[in-house]
Amino acid sequence: MRAEIISIGTELLLGQIVNTNAAFLAQELKSLGIDSYFQVTVGDNIKRIHEVLEQAQKRSNIIITTGGLGPTPDDLTHEAISTYFSVKQTLDKKYLQEIKKKFKLKGYKKMPPMNVKQAYKPKNAKWIKNNLGTANGIIWKVQSPQSKIIMTFPGVPHELEQMWKDTAKPYLKSFVKDSVFYSQILKFTGIGESTLAEKIKPLFKLKNPTVAPYASIGEVKIRVTAKVKNVSQGKKLVNRVVKKILSKTKEFYFGKDNETLEDLVGKALVKRKKTIACAESCTGGLLSKRLTDISGSSRYIKLNVTTYSNESKCRILNVPKHLIEKFGAVSKEVAERMAVGIKDLTKADIGFSITGIAGPKGGTKTKPVGLVYFGLAKGNKVETKKMLFGTNSTRDEIRWLATQYALNWIRKELNKLATR
Amino acid sequence: MRAEIISIGTELLLGQIVNTNAAFLAQELKSLGIDSYFQVTVGDNIKRIHEVLEQAQKRSNIIITTGGLGPTPDDLTHEAISTYFSVKQTLDKKYLQEIKKKFKLKGYKKMPPMNVKQAYKPKNAKWIKNNLGTANGIIWKVQSPQSKIIMTFPGVPHELEQMWKDTAKPYLKSFVKDSVFYSQILKFTGIGESTLAEKIKPLFKLKNPTVAPYASIGEVKIRVTAKVKNVSQGKKLVNRVVKKILSKTKEFYFGKDNETLEDLVGKALVKRKKTIACAESCTGGLLSKRLTDISGSSRYIKLNVTTYSNESKCRILNVPKHLIEKFGAVSKEVAERMAVGIKDLTKADIGFSITGIAGPKGGTKTKPVGLVYFGLAKGNKVETKKMLFGTNSTRDEIRWLATQYALNWIRKELNKLATR
Repeated sequence: MRAEIISIGTELLLGQIVNTNAAFLAQELKSLGIDSYFQVTVGDNIKRIHEVLEQAQKRSNIIITTGGLGPTPDDLTHEAISTYFSVKQTLDKKYLQEIKKKFKLKGYKKMPPMNVKQAYKPKNAKWIKNNLGTANGIIWKVQSPQSKIIMTFPGVPHELEQMWKDTAKPYLKSFVKDSVFYSQILKFTGIGESTLAEKIKPLFKLKNPTVAPYASIGEVKIRVTAKVKNVSQGKKLVNRVVKKILSKTKEFYFGKDNETLEDLVGKALVKRKKTIACAESCTGGLLSKRLTDISGSSRYIKLNVTTYSNESKCRILNVPKHLIEKFGAVSKEVAERMAVGIKDLTKADIGFSITGIAGPKGGTKTKPVGLVYFGLAKGNKVETKKMLFGTNSTRDEIRWLATQYALNWIRKELNKLATR
Repeated sequence: MRAEIISIGTELLLGQIVNTNAAFLAQELKSLGIDSYFQVTVGDNIKRIHEVLEQAQKRSNIIITTGGLGPTPDDLTHEAISTYFSVKQTLDKKYLQEIKKKFKLKGYKKMPPMNVKQAYKPKNAKWIKNNLGTANGIIWKVQSPQSKIIMTFPGVPHELEQMWKDTAKPYLKSFVKDSVFYSQILKFTGIGESTLAEKIKPLFKLKNPTVAPYASIGEVKIRVTAKVKNVSQGKKLVNRVVKKILSKTKEFYFGKDNETLEDLVGKALVKRKKTIACAESCTGGLLSKRLTDISGSSRYIKLNVTTYSNESKCRILNVPKHLIEKFGAVSKEVAERMAVGIKDLTKADIGFSITGIAGPKGGTKTKPVGLVYFGLAKGNKVETKKMLFGTNSTRDEIRWLATQYALNWIRKELNKLATR
């Protein structure tokens, strides 16, 4: 089975939104063991949608579209599919009633007339129910020119995801019983892509499983993927290679698959019954945000502060004014006092601080953009670290890199503590 | 001129990263007035890269690739392009020296041997210099089978962006003097897509400029795009339609093009010489993070806090304990005291608070997931608002929607104040 993802929407061609749906669908297809070699993006234009369908049906058995199911005149997906396969669209009166009901539940007096369109589908196609919005998709087995499965989804990510999980995935599962992809992703931080790759170079020649690296900001991933008959065979094959990789790279490894640093920090805190409190300056709340991204983080976070001004660093965190005057707010000395200050204020087990220059302005020769100091107070000890995140990096990148570094340090520190 | 964007990388087909590069390049092409009707994604596989090149060179004059320029064995872009056009790759010894230098500057003893590969390019192709990494791209005018421009970029977004701006964009500008796209995006919040679309329905039939809506979380955008000879003609054409749109939708409009709510709040604060301080609970620092995303935000932000526990709400913000006991931490009464508390603590002009249930756990029948209270204290007044962000939404979405709502309320409130 081969699937092709077709993303439909002029806003994609104009770059006004980023295509997260293609990534979601690609992941899901992979987990089902369905190959997918091409993704295509096309605008809201019937002729060009036809051109893309023509190609896709030559090389793929399953065609999955996203976008173009809305109520507005530029939403053309179902019309384009119907005309390409020369089948009429028919009105589903029952579904029209449902749409009307949905609008009433939302507090509208009546359905905007435009939405009638969403009750039309190619004859013989079945609905993929949208529980969150009014844009149903379809599953359609087309018999000619060749036997193909067509699936359509709206462009709104959480609607697509619900529809995929509830309807499309169970449907596709029945077709693919013979082979699956099994893959593991190993995540590293504090090392560059090619330096990491060099350490495990011979493994890149493997055919099954395959080994491939890729880099993002503050993180390198190594993907190990096996095509196998079942998951347990996959695990065996992949684990053997994972072991080899880790034997050469362990010090930079932090987690696997969907694990994030904030996940791991959260789990480690819970496991050790510890609490943490953060005092941020240049990261402006991003560390606090990432730590509280985790549901249940209220177990280990009581209070974080963004002390953006010098005055607030002194008043809230008890940083002595003369230290700021002597060393500046971006200094080892101030990072140290901030970490101790937030720990004392909150009585948390760990007090953590970040102070730096995120740019693009505010850098000097001795303290350039990208310079960040970190402090970690625990018991009656406090440690600081200094990093330079590259004067070429943007404000967003420096802030992100600083929180990556912070979370990884906290993770390592927690791993040193015994669990109780 | 027609350009086609080809994204190369198995990690894209496996959904392990989201393709932000395609969106960036699409935006840039649009601003140059270069049409782009198709985007294709393909894996690190020479045969399939050839298949995609074959298609692209039939329908486009400019082929832009991203990805596959790294040092590892699965990076095949230049090799695939050279073999497709039957031209040899040659080693650029001068560039090899530069790569070696780059590694030394980064503190490496020597270049990892793998990186030699990055000094090869098709004969006659010119480098697109990468100032941030070692993966140079190429600009190559291929004469046969047809005259085409090929441009390659690495997959790392900030490297691609620097290379585009410094080299590729100025190069392409010389080709496109006759027509440009001029477009404006109008941004709305607090209204759904079809309700907004219904208000301006007749405009969707326009041919030049075109009008198209699209929705994302907590935001609807209307794009007005004209294809014109020059920018001033575009402005005239587009502005006329923008006026018509705003005459029917003004109350939900907040900004245009790349303007974000945090930008507008920041500008409004600076203009009115006001400061703000936030006390967050369920959003965990996201509001603080968004406000400080803006360079120069230290002018209006001194201190924000994430009071995640009840105890910290009482201690830091002076919320009376009996209020939390009587009404719960997620209540109008507590939101009100939090806003006043952070205002008093910081002496800011505006104190803002958010307290709610972000889920997925913690909801009850009377206080479901998605319930959020907001407080705004100013002078000696304090106001609160209550929103229900939908029990179907995820934790991330609810947190995002809460900050959208908060920023929009702050923006409106500031707009009421006279500028000085």
